Amino acid sequence: MKRKIYFTPGPSALYFTVEEHLRTAFKNQIPSISHRGEEFSNIYRDTDKNLRELLSLPEDYCVFFTGSATEVWERMLQSSVRSESLHLVNGAFSRRFSNIAGQLDLNPRVVEVPPGQIVTVDQLPDNYEPELVGVTHNETSTGAMQPLEDIRAIREKYPEALIAVDVVSSLPVVPLPFDIVDSAYFSVQKCFGLPSGLGVWLVNNKFIEKARHITGRSSYHGIDSFLSNYRKYQTPATPNVLSIYLLGKVVGDMLEKGLDRIRMETRYKSAILYHLLESKVELTPFVEHQAWRSETIIVAKGKQTGSLAEALAQKGLVVGRGYGEFKNDHIRIANFPTHSKEQIEMLADQIDGMVN
Amino acid sequence: MKRKIYFTPGPSALYFTVEEHLRTAFKNQIPSISHRGEEFSNIYRDTDKNLRELLSLPEDYCVFFTGSATEVWERMLQSSVRSESLHLVNGAFSRRFSNIAGQLDLNPRVVEVPPGQIVTVDQLPDNYEPELVGVTHNETSTGAMQPLEDIRAIREKYPEALIAVDVVSSLPVVPLPFDIVDSAYFSVQKCFGLPSGLGVWLVNNKFIEKARHITGRSSYHGIDSFLSNYRKYQTPATPNVLSIYLLGKVVGDMLEKGLDRIRMETRYKSAILYHLLESKVELTPFVEHQAWRSETIIVAKGKQTGSLAEALAQKGLVVGRGYGEFKNDHIRIANFPTHSKEQIEMLADQIDGMVN
Repeated sequence: MKRKIYFTPGPSALYFTVEEHLRTAFKNQIPSISHRGEEFSNIYRDTDKNLRELLSLPEDYCVFFTGSATEVWERMLQSSVRSESLHLVNGAFSRRFSNIAGQLDLNPRVVEVPPGQIVTVDQLPDNYEPELVGVTHNETSTGAMQPLEDIRAIREKYPEALIAVDVVSSLPVVPLPFDIVDSAYFSVQKCFGLPSGLGVWLVNNKFIEKARHITGRSSYHGIDSFLSNYRKYQTPATPNVLSIYLLGKVVGDMLEKGLDRIRMETRYKSAILYHLLESKVELTPFVEHQAWRSETIIVAKGKQTGSLAEALAQKGLVVGRGYGEFKNDHIRIANFPTHSKEQIEMLADQIDGMVN
Repeated sequence: MKRKIYFTPGPSALYFTVEEHLRTAFKNQIPSISHRGEEFSNIYRDTDKNLRELLSLPEDYCVFFTGSATEVWERMLQSSVRSESLHLVNGAFSRRFSNIAGQLDLNPRVVEVPPGQIVTVDQLPDNYEPELVGVTHNETSTGAMQPLEDIRAIREKYPEALIAVDVVSSLPVVPLPFDIVDSAYFSVQKCFGLPSGLGVWLVNNKFIEKARHITGRSSYHGIDSFLSNYRKYQTPATPNVLSIYLLGKVVGDMLEKGLDRIRMETRYKSAILYHLLESKVELTPFVEHQAWRSETIIVAKGKQTGSLAEALAQKGLVVGRGYGEFKNDHIRIANFPTHSKEQIEMLADQIDGMVN
């Protein structure tokens, strides 16, 4: 069977060094080591160190691991919000975050705009003090991206609030201003190109201090438990050791390549795709406003997207279908660090030949 | 570096076919497939089918996946207990389960005996109706095993209660009577010999019905959410797809080998180890009562266990140190399906030569 290229929005193509690191991991018997021993602590420390360097994380940030980014939504709200969270909603994933606040009997306030758009800061409520503001930097369901200036403006508007940013499908490509953000999270099967099964949760000291004042909601995955284990580079429960190892290695490779170069290439590749879509009549960018278009998740709308996706799959090029209600109206193309310029150009050429 | 043999109680030695299955998985690009597509559903269905066959699961059982067995403790209590859970505690892991009930503001009732012993049924409270009884079949911290007759007696004593059995380090070796149990759970890095990062939660219809009557505690990992996804062979959040795939394959291999043979070999290998320990003065079985000795986690006590573990490690044989307070007084030896008779014999020979 011919190898396919996955441009799906995650799980997606593996980072091109993953298989090699996996072989080394098995050779060194990493899957058999104890998660309470020194060898694992060294792995956690290395991954933590590499992530800090790649993301320019401020000193006071901690790096925790969960089962998924979905779990982070729940743990974050459980540990840091007494009652009032504010959610900028513009698609399925930002909506789901606010739904989880509802499930936890919190009082989520939702400001919602139609999919493909962005909640602008002037739409946010005045005379209101949210405990936490949930911003989805890159809405994976629609390809809409919240400009970083907005996050700065939210910081100014709600100086006391915790700001939690979903960077599931945009880190490390987005230069997130961690100095004005208190919590950020992603899962490894998107831009980092790893097999799924690990969520990464970054929190700063302000977040931790707030969580400490919320009692009666402890959990093995509560902040206290995460923190006391983190101090030993351990985790509250047996983690996905292999994935933590692979993440550290892939981040190391990204450091070697250079984040500037990764960002430049991502911009270049996304320009190719948007340029193509702008030249087409039957397949156009779903996000109309240019400044709101994601560089990592490119979403196109059209009447024949189902058959287009099938025709591309026949060529071994797997793109994502539309999310939820858009299943038959969109295709979603991941433009992650592992996708080479040549691969994106090939995909663009194929689409060019198939669509008017 | 010479390959080590891990006899640690989990993570432990990989099942001997794991690397081969992993190669196939990568060849078929399993880590890149969508967790919302047919290919993943087929994997989930296969793993489910193989587990049902291996464990002789009754029809009404469901197979859910979590991040860890620790997560199962929390989700189980959250979804099925209004206030009263009863816990048989005889070591660190059974204790932790009851602690989680406390964290959730439930009213856990604990019947505790010293480590190495077993709570007997006559010690359990009369005139009391627990909603859920938590039994640790195999206490991984001490190597004490609850006889299956006890689980039958608990069923008779509390006919209405949900019975939840921790089989983290004993399934599939223990022939758990699923007809009298309502919830059972394990993690894949013990007897199944997989890399860590997946919990498996088995629940029957009685459990689900009870959970449905508990409102106001919904979660993406609540029973309703698990169930509606399970009906499509999907999961509430992006799961550890690779691990679900590998589990299905390893269980398939166990089916081919035959569970009877695996059980017979386990008994034989554990007999070798206990026989050795009974012949020694300076290293003796920690669990004194023979009927309570685990076949899969053999724990020995002695004064020189630290230096013994180091001497064995020098020979490439990695055994577990004692758990928690017993760190320097015990060694723990995993006797899992992947450990061959020859490996266990070699380990026994080495210990025999090192200890009086």
